Amino acid sequence: MSAPKKVVLAYSGGLDTSIILKWLQTEYGCEVVTFTADLGQGEELEPARKKAEMLGIKPENIFIEDIREEFVRDFVFPMFRANAVYEGLYLLGTSIARPLISKRLVEIAEATGADAVSHGATGKGNDQVRFELSAYALNPDIKVIAPWREWDLSSRTKLLEFAEANQIPIAKDKRGEAPFSVDANLLHTSSEGKVLEDPAEMAPDYVYQRTVNPEDAPDTPEFIEITFEKGDAVAINGEAMSPATILTQLNEYGRKHGIGRLDFVENRFVGMKSRGIYETPGGDILLEAHRGIEQITLDSGAGHLKDSIMPRYAELIYNGFWFSPEREMLQALIDESQKHVTGTVRLKLYKGSAKTVGRWSDHSLYSEAHVTFEEDAGAYDQKDAQGFIQLNALRLKLLAARDKRVKG
Amino acid sequence: MSAPKKVVLAYSGGLDTSIILKWLQTEYGCEVVTFTADLGQGEELEPARKKAEMLGIKPENIFIEDIREEFVRDFVFPMFRANAVYEGLYLLGTSIARPLISKRLVEIAEATGADAVSHGATGKGNDQVRFELSAYALNPDIKVIAPWREWDLSSRTKLLEFAEANQIPIAKDKRGEAPFSVDANLLHTSSEGKVLEDPAEMAPDYVYQRTVNPEDAPDTPEFIEITFEKGDAVAINGEAMSPATILTQLNEYGRKHGIGRLDFVENRFVGMKSRGIYETPGGDILLEAHRGIEQITLDSGAGHLKDSIMPRYAELIYNGFWFSPEREMLQALIDESQKHVTGTVRLKLYKGSAKTVGRWSDHSLYSEAHVTFEEDAGAYDQKDAQGFIQLNALRLKLLAARDKRVKG
Amino acid sequence: MSAPKKVVLAYSGGLDTSIILKWLQTEYGCEVVTFTADLGQGEELEPARKKAEMLGIKPENIFIEDIREEFVRDFVFPMFRANAVYEGLYLLGTSIARPLISKRLVEIAEATGADAVSHGATGKGNDQVRFELSAYALNPDIKVIAPWREWDLSSRTKLLEFAEANQIPIAKDKRGEAPFSVDANLLHTSSEGKVLEDPAEMAPDYVYQRTVNPEDAPDTPEFIEITFEKGDAVAINGEAMSPATILTQLNEYGRKHGIGRLDFVENRFVGMKSRGIYETPGGDILLEAHRGIEQITLDSGAGHLKDSIMPRYAELIYNGFWFSPEREMLQALIDESQKHVTGTVRLKLYKGSAKTVGRWSDHSLYSEAHVTFEEDAGAYDQKDAQGFIQLNALRLKLLAARDKRVKG
Amino acid sequence: MSAPKKVVLAYSGGLDTSIILKWLQTEYGCEVVTFTADLGQGEELEPARKKAEMLGIKPENIFIEDIREEFVRDFVFPMFRANAVYEGLYLLGTSIARPLISKRLVEIAEATGADAVSHGATGKGNDQVRFELSAYALNPDIKVIAPWREWDLSSRTKLLEFAEANQIPIAKDKRGEAPFSVDANLLHTSSEGKVLEDPAEMAPDYVYQRTVNPEDAPDTPEFIEITFEKGDAVAINGEAMSPATILTQLNEYGRKHGIGRLDFVENRFVGMKSRGIYETPGGDILLEAHRGIEQITLDSGAGHLKDSIMPRYAELIYNGFWFSPEREMLQALIDESQKHVTGTVRLKLYKGSAKTVGRWSDHSLYSEAHVTFEEDAGAYDQKDAQGFIQLNALRLKLLAARDKRVKG
Repeated sequence: MSAPKKVVLAYSGGLDTSIILKWLQTEYGCEVVTFTADLGQGEELEPARKKAEMLGIKPENIFIEDIREEFVRDFVFPMFRANAVYEGLYLLGTSIARPLISKRLVEIAEATGADAVSHGATGKGNDQVRFELSAYALNPDIKVIAPWREWDLSSRTKLLEFAEANQIPIAKDKRGEAPFSVDANLLHTSSEGKVLEDPAEMAPDYVYQRTVNPEDAPDTPEFIEITFEKGDAVAINGEAMSPATILTQLNEYGRKHGIGRLDFVENRFVGMKSRGIYETPGGDILLEAHRGIEQITLDSGAGHLKDSIMPRYAELIYNGFWFSPEREMLQALIDESQKHVTGTVRLKLYKGSAKTVGRWSDHSLYSEAHVTFEEDAGAYDQKDAQGFIQLNALRLKLLAARDKRVKG
Repeated sequence: MSAPKKVVLAYSGGLDTSIILKWLQTEYGCEVVTFTADLGQGEELEPARKKAEMLGIKPENIFIEDIREEFVRDFVFPMFRANAVYEGLYLLGTSIARPLISKRLVEIAEATGADAVSHGATGKGNDQVRFELSAYALNPDIKVIAPWREWDLSSRTKLLEFAEANQIPIAKDKRGEAPFSVDANLLHTSSEGKVLEDPAEMAPDYVYQRTVNPEDAPDTPEFIEITFEKGDAVAINGEAMSPATILTQLNEYGRKHGIGRLDFVENRFVGMKSRGIYETPGGDILLEAHRGIEQITLDSGAGHLKDSIMPRYAELIYNGFWFSPEREMLQALIDESQKHVTGTVRLKLYKGSAKTVGRWSDHSLYSEAHVTFEEDAGAYDQKDAQGFIQLNALRLKLLAARDKRVKG
Repeated sequence: MSAPKKVVLAYSGGLDTSIILKWLQTEYGCEVVTFTADLGQGEELEPARKKAEMLGIKPENIFIEDIREEFVRDFVFPMFRANAVYEGLYLLGTSIARPLISKRLVEIAEATGADAVSHGATGKGNDQVRFELSAYALNPDIKVIAPWREWDLSSRTKLLEFAEANQIPIAKDKRGEAPFSVDANLLHTSSEGKVLEDPAEMAPDYVYQRTVNPEDAPDTPEFIEITFEKGDAVAINGEAMSPATILTQLNEYGRKHGIGRLDFVENRFVGMKSRGIYETPGGDILLEAHRGIEQITLDSGAGHLKDSIMPRYAELIYNGFWFSPEREMLQALIDESQKHVTGTVRLKLYKGSAKTVGRWSDHSLYSEAHVTFEEDAGAYDQKDAQGFIQLNALRLKLLAARDKRVKG
Repeated sequence: MSAPKKVVLAYSGGLDTSIILKWLQTEYGCEVVTFTADLGQGEELEPARKKAEMLGIKPENIFIEDIREEFVRDFVFPMFRANAVYEGLYLLGTSIARPLISKRLVEIAEATGADAVSHGATGKGNDQVRFELSAYALNPDIKVIAPWREWDLSSRTKLLEFAEANQIPIAKDKRGEAPFSVDANLLHTSSEGKVLEDPAEMAPDYVYQRTVNPEDAPDTPEFIEITFEKGDAVAINGEAMSPATILTQLNEYGRKHGIGRLDFVENRFVGMKSRGIYETPGGDILLEAHRGIEQITLDSGAGHLKDSIMPRYAELIYNGFWFSPEREMLQALIDESQKHVTGTVRLKLYKGSAKTVGRWSDHSLYSEAHVTFEEDAGAYDQKDAQGFIQLNALRLKLLAARDKRVKG
């Protein structure tokens, strides 16, 4: 790979990406464009602008954007249509944000004539894979610079020395090492590393940043209603809202009731296991509600097919293949299933859990006439079950007769 | 089908199966053998013996058995090795008990020279299918009598008249209709019908029989440790126990903390939707713990393959195909995966939920040396990630280049 | 089910459906509408009109239609996009025609005010299921009359007596029983029953009606080129043609070279095994060609996902679930994959087989620059393979280390 | 990776691996152990011994073994139980040999105290992945040397110079470059590269080395019978044979009749497409026969489950994951299905194709009594189909009613 001439950097304004910024300038002598996005991580963006300016980035090379609506509408909601969970439990909060960041990096590279993009993910994790697969899928000729895999600033001491040597300001609380590492966006906060590295040890309370401890949550349950249209949440308690607003509100409900905490050991795509503490307050509520509305609006053929492909779909997102033909094929299948996933779910929020307690819809397939224990006025003829069972049993009988015959 | 001569009846001792007993005698003039099993449903069995005698069953034709250990060891535990859940949420508590009952019915038929078996399931539900597919798979020549699909005792009034005409004692509280229908065994209690038929309406509190309301559960979390060997729970808090004892104890923990409640609308195999309230106190804890121990003992190849076939496995059990080649094939796959699923999980039980907070094992695949944010002494070369990403990206680049070329 | 008042009958003009026509009139006293379709079965349709008139059907109640283009365009081609084969070998020639016939029956019922439809399939086969599931999926209130499951004309003698008693003309060669049963349409001819019932015995030569014996095919291979656009064949040897014309031409090539014969034992949906002789001359060629063009235009992600869902898709069509949400979801997935399946395949036809010998496309993903044994000018860095392998191996190494440690 | 001290080399005795042998000695100054296996590739092994001696390998470091029986019994046959084909057509002939070679390399390393193994596969292909994943899965501490990814002998000229400088004899026909590259074993011969690199061009006749051109095959069909026990072929025409003998004989039948030729473009695991010419004469016959015997001995539940997991199984073998938990889990599933796959298949071999024309078995599930068009003496009650269809249709009717209601 020839040296990059102009690089778009995913820039948070924090110490690490500031060091990368400077390192790119000094190592490659290249022009740097910064991209700072509001994905709902809960940090001010303007300080990033100031810091970028201070580090010598030209104003026209500083991109600061609020992409929360795009994030929820085009990434989070399509994923929730699938009820996607990775390895049974993880709601993919980090995974789903990466492709959007890469998409904007590549678009800004095209707009600014840059030939490379760069990110601050390490060489051990999944995020490098997600960033780079997305970038290459969108522009096969783009270069990607991953400083953590390249440089020799591999210890805290070396990083701080580099920062000082390059006049990068260091916040006081960054002098020492953080006790764990954090990623956040509107969907979730993940924490991992250091004090969390022993999966036998319970995570300390101070790790949780986004939800109250269930023990401290209200002693009285709260009930809310979420309305869906074609698989996407569109209203809470009857009030219509934009995608990002809905997720923000659900986060608030979840935070208050201690919902969405997960202590998890997962398999990274790069081959090792890691342990993370995830908080997905709104996401947990949304998943439960989406399952609730599907219960009455999807038939078993559609539902079981969705269930059977879900693990593959979740794995693709986890591994960084959002922009791949197979993810798009699965999305086409999922979206086709959601045409009637319209209606309202009532949930009980209490001390760490969100549970469906009622659901209704004009599109409901639930037929009280068929299921009732009472007289059903001919909706269902119980004698049909006789033939249904006999023909389902036929091959089993033939097998049993064969076994008997062979054993003699 | 020619008339049966001797029928083994799955007999609870309750009003409905007593009516069936009498109906079989009068309708077919056949000898009846009763089979009453303790599956952990929480009822005394001896009254069933007395009632059977009273209804004219010969002592040698009355079979009363405690099959709880066989139930948990050979049915519940193999199913939990798969983390089986139906339609995302249901732990298959009723489904998994039916094949064992059928197995004993068929075995008793062979032992007593009976040519038929009979059950009290209706023509609308899944249980008739499960009973009958199991029976036919075990004995292709057995006859199955399903009175609810045959007789004309289709209203409460007719049933009571038949009972009175045949000197079947009717408990006072059975005169009126029950407000809902219940099935129970050591794994779960399910309630459905009548007051529960509107899926929009929250289930009344009195429906729950086996768990305290989470609001009434202790205000302090409780921590327990479950130890697994080859995928099966073998000890609680370090104390070794038999399978049924473990499940019984976990049920007690779950009951106390309000764990395992589910309000659910599901797709029956016979084609309609139904709404049930399920309580699986010990099962919920066991599933969470089993997932916890798999997190550190299964690698991603094994885990993802298990996840991908689980929905099919759960569907087979739900639909009544326990005794089928495909269930046995999937079981072989699952059991192969559990050879190293050995270790201990620590769980927090609190107000309706059980959550893994720690796990450890001599068989662990978790490698702190690989995942650490600290120096890893060469366990992992971050530069390898470069090649890994490049080759995973290659086809995506070729796709992107093709798209660019074609759009040209 | 209340008695039908007006029935649309799938009417071939042959003896059996003529008997059904008369039986419907006499049994139910209902008005009969006949639907006779040209699906490419190779029979004249006008005799059916005359016969229907002769049996008392009013001219406005006789529907005769050439639906070959719709058949190939909307049913055969979508299915071939999936490379669908049932149980490894069967191209679903009968299965795919049934939903279209049902669709027209239901549409004609709506147009003529009929409340029922009827077909001539027996109670043992798959076709009854396919006809009826399709009809119910399109009109949940339609009645379906399946005379073979209802009447007592269960022997050849009774049928002929009924025919004579009702002045139904009987062709001479229909007096005796046919030595096997045949179904045909533009995609295939199937033969089964009677002389074919022993699966150990080789099918006699006279069973094959649509292909020459490979031994009698030309001694010289013939080469043809098929061009695809978005997954569908659009031209042969450079000449653009309509869907039905393409299949007709491919049938002619296949017939001449003895291509598409299959001696097969399959699992029917109703639970038994049956043996059929299938001839799919054009279909075999088309499948080979479609696979050929996909080889260069689909990437592995798309191709492997398609392969993994294909058996389920084929099973749905075989079982009669064309008009089901899950088939439509899978179709959405498949169609999404075909956007670039455009290009040309060259095939060698010779003595019973069609084989791809070349393929090219503007949409090709094949990159000689990458794969070449020669210098590749930097397209591919062999050193990347090192990291790729190391990270793919990581979990395997951790497993091996665990095994060693545990056995230790 | 520290430098290896003693390396076990997969050594063919040819020019390329002789150069590797010398390069290992000179580059690393390490001791070399050679392993030369007879996998049925059709070459004498003794010349390899002489050449190794000549290149300075100590006699006790030269391992020459006939592993054909192990190859067929423990690798080829288990794979054929699954009817494994990669991307619809490729019988995995190269893929399945690699894990066995690696297994022996690792075992010899342990026996001789070597710390490394080495192979002659390039950095562009799949074989490097298969060799290395297998080696690491069997010994997590082994080093693997892949000279083609490391050295600078990247052109023909450099290789020949190195050979001459090191007194490696060069056969005359190796002076020029081969027009394509070949791999062979008892299951297949593959050819790729150079003259085959344009997938639009028909492969020249001289590429085929193991089968006659179908045009030159006998003009008369030949019929053979293959007998299976539990999924494995055990006899031809009634004569019992060892696994390798059976495959050898089938290869002879296939060669003679021009069976098993495949012109194929496939997706390599490393991300690019490549074109190969494969010849699998015996394998093609064996696959057809195995499918034939499964047709009567597997029920639909087992068969369809096998079909659904086959693509994943084939992909694992292709990608080099033979020694992985998920391949072993799938194998457990497959082997469980084969307990009754016992019986005999009759095949017609003619001009390039092998086709089942008859099959019989004491374990057959085919029931003429059920399927017959004649009177079936009560084996099957056609009225059962009514209920079977009604309950399968129920959800489709509810869907149709919903659609009607929603559209209004």
